[in-house]
Amino acid sequence: MSRAVQRVAVLGAGSWGTAFGKVLADAGRDVTLWARRPEIADAVNSERANPGYLPGVELPSRLSATTNAAAALDGADVVVLAVPSQTLRTNLSGWAGLLPPGRTLVSLAKGIELGTLKRMSEVVAEVAGVSPEQVAVVSGPNLAREIAGEEPTATVIACTDHDRAVALQNACTTDYFRSYTNTDVVGCELGGAGKNVIALAVGIAAGMGLGDNSRASVITRGLAEISRLGTELGADPMTFAGLAGLGDLVATCSSPLSRNRTFGERLGRGESLAQAEEANHGQVAEGVKSCQSICELGARHGVELPIADAVRRVCHEGLSAPAMAKELITRAPKPE
Amino acid sequence: MSRAVQRVAVLGAGSWGTAFGKVLADAGRDVTLWARRPEIADAVNSERANPGYLPGVELPSRLSATTNAAAALDGADVVVLAVPSQTLRTNLSGWAGLLPPGRTLVSLAKGIELGTLKRMSEVVAEVAGVSPEQVAVVSGPNLAREIAGEEPTATVIACTDHDRAVALQNACTTDYFRSYTNTDVVGCELGGAGKNVIALAVGIAAGMGLGDNSRASVITRGLAEISRLGTELGADPMTFAGLAGLGDLVATCSSPLSRNRTFGERLGRGESLAQAEEANHGQVAEGVKSCQSICELGARHGVELPIADAVRRVCHEGLSAPAMAKELITRAPKPE
Repeated sequence: MSRAVQRVAVLGAGSWGTAFGKVLADAGRDVTLWARRPEIADAVNSERANPGYLPGVELPSRLSATTNAAAALDGADVVVLAVPSQTLRTNLSGWAGLLPPGRTLVSLAKGIELGTLKRMSEVVAEVAGVSPEQVAVVSGPNLAREIAGEEPTATVIACTDHDRAVALQNACTTDYFRSYTNTDVVGCELGGAGKNVIALAVGIAAGMGLGDNSRASVITRGLAEISRLGTELGADPMTFAGLAGLGDLVATCSSPLSRNRTFGERLGRGESLAQAEEANHGQVAEGVKSCQSICELGARHGVELPIADAVRRVCHEGLSAPAMAKELITRAPKPE
Repeated sequence: MSRAVQRVAVLGAGSWGTAFGKVLADAGRDVTLWARRPEIADAVNSERANPGYLPGVELPSRLSATTNAAAALDGADVVVLAVPSQTLRTNLSGWAGLLPPGRTLVSLAKGIELGTLKRMSEVVAEVAGVSPEQVAVVSGPNLAREIAGEEPTATVIACTDHDRAVALQNACTTDYFRSYTNTDVVGCELGGAGKNVIALAVGIAAGMGLGDNSRASVITRGLAEISRLGTELGADPMTFAGLAGLGDLVATCSSPLSRNRTFGERLGRGESLAQAEEANHGQVAEGVKSCQSICELGARHGVELPIADAVRRVCHEGLSAPAMAKELITRAPKPE
């Protein structure tokens, strides 16, 4: 893909899709955002805003929106997929016939598909019928609202085809957005999916009133177990020490904007899953689903995941938060 | 050292020395704390408290204090050194003749000695005239006040002699304090010294009003450069992903109790080093000194340390915080 990137389609107009579309437009690309809801496309085109997802942010004129996926995809040099992980397969199935051949497909979704246990890039390659080298992922400490506010941010663009990663990097470099390339797609995706589960665990600890020592330990040991799982699946362990592993995890666990952390805090204060779900506008946090697929992956590959498993049992088997904490702290002493 | 650990001398009665002494006592050891100031020794012995360093904490009866180092060291199975890093050489020189032969010496200090560029365990081995296998270090996400409050905490005990590390681990295991052994002393010490410098950088970013994305990136990229330096010095890179690297760094950077972070925030708000020093009771934060020795180590070993170097220039060469941020964000895009 030595072809320069000029036209980009971003499919999905939530906060991350819109913010990444803004980055691309600010970097000089012509970006068309596909929105499911007409009112969002209208607001982007006529008010230069997406107030439901990015309140107060003015969108650049190079970013336009449509509800017509074919129109968004027409002539696109790069296609960015920005729909939720568990709906990616269904959405992409409807778009597969419209994708311009040979173009890089970029996944922004983070998660492991329930049932199939596939990573998002695997779902993309399978549904779009393309080789894995054509699929890139973007992952890092990327709170969408901060990026939309043009706060300095770093990210990782991963693709097994290094040239595609570099072309994408060039396409999205601005004075506030800096990207690093990586060829470790597996590591970046595991880091992204795992962080939601660890953020739930950190939230549970915070909800119980535990302090910064515990929180830092859960982050560290949680990242270590995701790293062990990823390495078993073929990832480079150093990816987990980078922006798409540690960086993403620390940003998520620090931010009051994180739904996974907030959801975990409610569980830690003794609320039931149903109560926490109700407080979260009727939705469970992403980590509540991912903890199941991640634990299944661990079991399939023989990797022990004590923190993810504890989160899974709190969410799905009624383990109490204090019992979880006691269990984690009283495991037998051993080498690190 | 298959000999069981029963009597422990802790030399230094600041917050970390006192808190670690309490852990050892709670784990069933007989602990004698050496304090420089008689009023601290008196308070420990008569009030079971060290109100200047750990207000509101009741100390166990197995912990007593003295101002007489020889009395503290008499019959000790393990000697814990808990004095500040830049005074360790001087203090230990005065105690060297009193140390019971063959015993494990444990360093709690974090830093790189100015001038010599030696790690604390190297200073200990040199001044005490013992082999490096006899020196252990304790490092991890260990905010002393939280440990004294019996919050669940994990740590790393590192010693090149694994048996000594295990004996120490057994000597300090309680229901709130869990330790992991490691033989990578170099990695644990570099992690501990480097984290103060990175915490300064995080503070500077926070003081400038930057958000969680930036903060997470500084933590991640900062740990990466310390890890590169440590690896060059013989450390295992995985140590930096563990409790003594990532864990300690995240706890320090999250805590409002961290002097390095608070000091950095003042610099980030535009205060001079002198102003920040004045607000910090006339003392510079540890990272202000360590950034010099760490940058010297980097130069000696040919390791690029952009964040530590930026901190050094803010602290010692008058670089402004905004200029530092601009410089770090506009470095040329590259692989991670």
